[in-house]
Amino acid sequence: MTEECTAREVLDRVGGKWSIAIIVAAAQGPVRFTELERSIDGISRRMLALTLRNLERDGLLTRTVYPTVPPKVEYVATDLAREIYDALVTLTTWAERHRAEIAAARAAYDRRAAS
Amino acid sequence: MTEECTAREVLDRVGGKWSIAIIVAAAQGPVRFTELERSIDGISRRMLALTLRNLERDGLLTRTVYPTVPPKVEYVATDLAREIYDALVTLTTWAERHRAEIAAARAAYDRRAAS
Repeated sequence: MTEECTAREVLDRVGGKWSIAIIVAAAQGPVRFTELERSIDGISRRMLALTLRNLERDGLLTRTVYPTVPPKVEYVATDLAREIYDALVTLTTWAERHRAEIAAARAAYDRRAAS
Repeated sequence: MTEECTAREVLDRVGGKWSIAIIVAAAQGPVRFTELERSIDGISRRMLALTLRNLERDGLLTRTVYPTVPPKVEYVATDLAREIYDALVTLTTWAERHRAEIAAARAAYDRRAAS
């Protein structure tokens, strides 16, 4: 794998559907699994667990297990992840603001393609 | 599909592996298919064609066909896509700067998981 591919692989991981929402949430302070599950609409437990593990593995989240009964597990964004917080918030805000416009562009394209 | 899902779908499309590089390239002026193919290391003709079509469909790229022989086809980022240009450049620069660090984090995680 070339170095160029690795940078792209990093982007693919960070830019993934659920990663952006998780990093943004965990950059504002430690969050628990169940809090993320509640706040990220549409994510399954399995996808949340998988995405958290991948982000931890990439050094973008720190996972802390507190020795309570039951154990409390918290996730927080690392300094590395915080560097892109503003860019991720910009993308999220943009996507929310323009989703209707993009849906309309898509529908118009499909009508042209069908005619 | 809820509105929330649609915003996430938009992010997934924009944040995709190849989309970022294509939008960044096409925000600097019209580019041709072959220019993109040469400048984006590792992309296949098929993936480039597919990603260009999806970005055009979402209203993020404009495709212009000039009636020359052979026809000249150019792609340029729309105003909508230009709004996230800075954020995408930030992500790209960050990924390039930190890819070694992220690869090291990954390797360390895997060693811990294996022990």
